[in-house]
Amino acid sequence: MSSLLVDNIGELVTNLAGGGEGGPLGIRRRAALLVEAGEVAWVGPARDAPAADRRIDAEGAAVLPGFVDSHAHLVFAGDRAAEFAARMAGQPYTGGGIRTTVGATRAATDDELRVTVRRLRGEALRQGTTTIEIKSGYGLTVADEARSLRIAAEVTPETTFLGAHVVPTEYADRPDDYVGLVCGPMLAAAAPHARWIDVFCERGAFDIDHARAILACGQAVGLGVRVHANQLGPGPGVQLGVELGAASVDHCTHLSDADLDALASTRMDWTSGTETTTVATLLPGAEFSTRSPYPDARRLLDAGVTVALATDCNPGSSYTSSMPFCVALAVREMRMTPAEAVWAATAGGARALRRDDVGVLRPGARADLIILDAPSHLHLAYRPGVPLIRQVLHNGVPQCRP
Amino acid sequence: MSSLLVDNIGELVTNLAGGGEGGPLGIRRRAALLVEAGEVAWVGPARDAPAADRRIDAEGAAVLPGFVDSHAHLVFAGDRAAEFAARMAGQPYTGGGIRTTVGATRAATDDELRVTVRRLRGEALRQGTTTIEIKSGYGLTVADEARSLRIAAEVTPETTFLGAHVVPTEYADRPDDYVGLVCGPMLAAAAPHARWIDVFCERGAFDIDHARAILACGQAVGLGVRVHANQLGPGPGVQLGVELGAASVDHCTHLSDADLDALASTRMDWTSGTETTTVATLLPGAEFSTRSPYPDARRLLDAGVTVALATDCNPGSSYTSSMPFCVALAVREMRMTPAEAVWAATAGGARALRRDDVGVLRPGARADLIILDAPSHLHLAYRPGVPLIRQVLHNGVPQCRP
Repeated sequence: MSSLLVDNIGELVTNLAGGGEGGPLGIRRRAALLVEAGEVAWVGPARDAPAADRRIDAEGAAVLPGFVDSHAHLVFAGDRAAEFAARMAGQPYTGGGIRTTVGATRAATDDELRVTVRRLRGEALRQGTTTIEIKSGYGLTVADEARSLRIAAEVTPETTFLGAHVVPTEYADRPDDYVGLVCGPMLAAAAPHARWIDVFCERGAFDIDHARAILACGQAVGLGVRVHANQLGPGPGVQLGVELGAASVDHCTHLSDADLDALASTRMDWTSGTETTTVATLLPGAEFSTRSPYPDARRLLDAGVTVALATDCNPGSSYTSSMPFCVALAVREMRMTPAEAVWAATAGGARALRRDDVGVLRPGARADLIILDAPSHLHLAYRPGVPLIRQVLHNGVPQCRP
Repeated sequence: MSSLLVDNIGELVTNLAGGGEGGPLGIRRRAALLVEAGEVAWVGPARDAPAADRRIDAEGAAVLPGFVDSHAHLVFAGDRAAEFAARMAGQPYTGGGIRTTVGATRAATDDELRVTVRRLRGEALRQGTTTIEIKSGYGLTVADEARSLRIAAEVTPETTFLGAHVVPTEYADRPDDYVGLVCGPMLAAAAPHARWIDVFCERGAFDIDHARAILACGQAVGLGVRVHANQLGPGPGVQLGVELGAASVDHCTHLSDADLDALASTRMDWTSGTETTTVATLLPGAEFSTRSPYPDARRLLDAGVTVALATDCNPGSSYTSSMPFCVALAVREMRMTPAEAVWAATAGGARALRRDDVGVLRPGARADLIILDAPSHLHLAYRPGVPLIRQVLHNGVPQCRP
């Protein structure tokens, strides 16, 4: 593969602490970056840039690591626009609409699901998302969960088995039996296509005992743990996630001081080099689209918790695929600084997926990056709603301009 | 000019009351639309579509009138990203930063201003804005206001003289003299390039007596009236606007019952066919980017006031050019239904500019329209932040896909 120089970068966000100016973003000015074999081969001052076979002139723009969207539900059929409109007219969100999507998903062909997954994956990529996690959870039968993950795995290695999204209607009066199905044949069929296991631990979904049992089964077959926790009210999900060494607990809208302490106690083990941090992944698109109070990112950050931002892209509670939109919301509504929000949407997402090869721009990392139509990362919050992604490189390959 | 058929439209928003399903949008299903000579020549069921020289297959998507952004400040130099970041860290918005942009704008060459205006106009067009109003107001000298309007007039007929944006520093201790300048030589130099006159009537900017004097001078030379009113606190701006027959009073964040009554009393004069409605133009991008409380659109709508949505695109308080973003905010934050918000962003904006040839899709109207990457207008609110504009026709001409 030939070499490619991204030159004339006005502001390069590396996410390397100590790698440039102060702050979390490791900003370098007037920089260049060399790509070889799909990886970053060199980063340095533009004046020292090495020769390369090809060159992209960033024209003084900002360059960032590609967004890492660590929470998305892209395998589904149908939409719930009417439910959204009813909610905006005053109907509360309870999560019950998930079953509507389950019905539509079960009725869809593989190819119908595949078209939707690829359409949304492409839409996200054009908006700068170079790494995306995709969950199952709208099948809720052995066959439908397995095919959901198989289809997701065609577009990303970050696949998550979420058979425990809700108890499907046919098991409504015997949830123990459904948990048995999830831990038994469903997990067996899903695991070959999944890297992670997740549970929606919430009133109306799965209680702590069921959630612990399901996550433990997943861990036993080698899946990493993630938890949907504390979205609609206080609950045990966050502390369960920490107890099980989850890579991430997601939503975190309603947190007690004990939840906060538990999250803050997790950290990188520098002796063994093992990452054991449980990241708090905030999903402000869900609060936007359910008209709910936002999580308090400031409280988490001030307590030393590692925070990620993700879209929660799904047809019910957050049908956005836009990480820039989530960054803007995080700054407006959750009191994150623009730098904290950009870090959370890139390096934070990578931590939530326990990846050290994405969300960062250093030699050896994947050449996943965004060139903005703007001179600074600040513009992602300063210019809300505006498509600011000029160019995306994914594995070093320039994508079509959106 | 050859004819062009937009065929296979799943949902056509005409904005013709009684033109289709109930509600303000006049929705027709399975429709087609014929374009000739830059105008809509025919609208009807797809099965009755006439022959045409060319054809665009909308593939079942929603088609809307192009957005009418009736409030934008695009003639400026510099940006205020650092001021934005400081504000998000807690500094209040007072409007004082306008003077920062005035300094940068005065120092810029004509071509520098032209590049910015055209870049932002193009950005808005790609997001579906086919009609845009552009204000001066960052020059504040005779020469700089005149050139701002001359440059704006190169890209839109809807140009607004806003010499009374703030009192410039050099007149800080003699505002009466500045008002004299605005009404005299500045108006004389500006009027040939302007359709409208506007005043920022607010504590810290212009009081009611100055505002009335300036607007009356503009009216005397044939300019239509618009007012920046009641943004930062209660004030006399809305009632002054109604008194003078303003086409629109903009912001309307802090309204008394008397303000509401005044607005609701204005209406179309059906006897003479003269439009004398004063529209309330809401600018939720400003509240988003200054972290301020939003105006109460529901209260206005329930009182029978005509409401428009616009971006307020400017480098200080609202640097978004995205009408879809404003629609999403209006639904989330101002209790508008998706249909009301889409109407306000199209037909409402047209009313605010006293235009009957845009914001509507009927024979004889301009062929300014948007094809969405979605089956329904609902998706503009349901899918916040996602670039959903698949194709834009402006004066019947398909623009490059964004």
